[in-house]
Amino acid sequence: MATLFHNPLCPFSRKIRLIMGEKKFAADMVEERPWERRLDFLMLNPSGEVPVLEGEVGTIAGHYAISEWLEEKGGAAKLFPDSGLGRAEVRRLIAWFDDKFHKEVGSLIIHEKIDRRFMNHEQGGGTPDMENVRIGLHNLKIHLEYISYLLSQRDWLAGQELSLADITAAAHLSCLDYTGDVVWRDWPDAREWYAKLKSRPSFRSLLSDHLAGLRPASHYTDLDF
Amino acid sequence: MATLFHNPLCPFSRKIRLIMGEKKFAADMVEERPWERRLDFLMLNPSGEVPVLEGEVGTIAGHYAISEWLEEKGGAAKLFPDSGLGRAEVRRLIAWFDDKFHKEVGSLIIHEKIDRRFMNHEQGGGTPDMENVRIGLHNLKIHLEYISYLLSQRDWLAGQELSLADITAAAHLSCLDYTGDVVWRDWPDAREWYAKLKSRPSFRSLLSDHLAGLRPASHYTDLDF
Repeated sequence: MATLFHNPLCPFSRKIRLIMGEKKFAADMVEERPWERRLDFLMLNPSGEVPVLEGEVGTIAGHYAISEWLEEKGGAAKLFPDSGLGRAEVRRLIAWFDDKFHKEVGSLIIHEKIDRRFMNHEQGGGTPDMENVRIGLHNLKIHLEYISYLLSQRDWLAGQELSLADITAAAHLSCLDYTGDVVWRDWPDAREWYAKLKSRPSFRSLLSDHLAGLRPASHYTDLDF
Repeated sequence: MATLFHNPLCPFSRKIRLIMGEKKFAADMVEERPWERRLDFLMLNPSGEVPVLEGEVGTIAGHYAISEWLEEKGGAAKLFPDSGLGRAEVRRLIAWFDDKFHKEVGSLIIHEKIDRRFMNHEQGGGTPDMENVRIGLHNLKIHLEYISYLLSQRDWLAGQELSLADITAAAHLSCLDYTGDVVWRDWPDAREWYAKLKSRPSFRSLLSDHLAGLRPASHYTDLDF
């Protein structure tokens, strides 16, 4: 069986865990703290980043390589549409969340509120810089507005079918749902969309995450939040 | 004919221009300055980022969507190998340069030395912060060391064939070659590899770039640097 090296509140790891859930691709899960720069892990992925999938045939490093590899394997639960332009739209939105959302929102909030808790002083640990959190929360509203706009045009983010764009967006938002930073009542369309995703069996493993010393927000596991 | 909205010293735009050159995919070129946030361009790509490809059939936004779309079209000059693991290795290295190299090296140096020249005060323009440049130059050495290591194992970055990993790395390095920041004589293997890429016809359009008020380094167009 393959092994996935991941970190529980890393959105890129969560994206891969969701894809694996959708595709019923089983793997052993190993929790990695990238900031510890463990030598054996660096041998596996010189960039030192999660997720990494280690299989019998070889190692696949990084969410981009893993997600495209899992899709190319084919089988059930296709997460890309058939048309070339449709796939381009899915990939535009994947990049939106992996690059733009992560930079403007997720990395600020998660780094301050979560990662720095588990780091020692040399690794950059300490109490959260609330100014970064404040900027992230401000930007989060703009992204929820964009999600709401997309959902006013379409059933799912990239079109009429569930795709990797939805999975990616949900992976990023789920980290902020753990910390209780998404004010869902202000965004009814986004909430309804997220509720549909949260109810999928692929989401279960994410909902059972529980970080030592940091409980999830009270509604985190609630499917009717 | 399609239109590519690009910025001359944006590495992601350069990557797409190189792919188009390799695949002989012709397009009109329109120079866009993303920081001006031109309304018509934001309608085309709400993220406000280059590159964007506008064709007769629709719009494809972002280097990830465009590069995969161009590859999926098939035809000559395949830039991904046939094996799934081979493609995963190419994508690992694409992400290495697009994410890690760009964050640790390229964005620091190019933003300070180039972009800020063309920005007004409100857009963040001004004289370069040399501390950022210094950090970028320090990190550049680590990346050139990694490139040299890969080339000690393989003919090209991801294996025995030219791939999108080489194109991506060259696109990022070519920006720093314009500013004269790559000390090639210290990295003979990387230099030989880059010389092979620089001699390809697809590179010609990059070598003819000439920013107003900022001449390229003297060896920039020299194929025997």
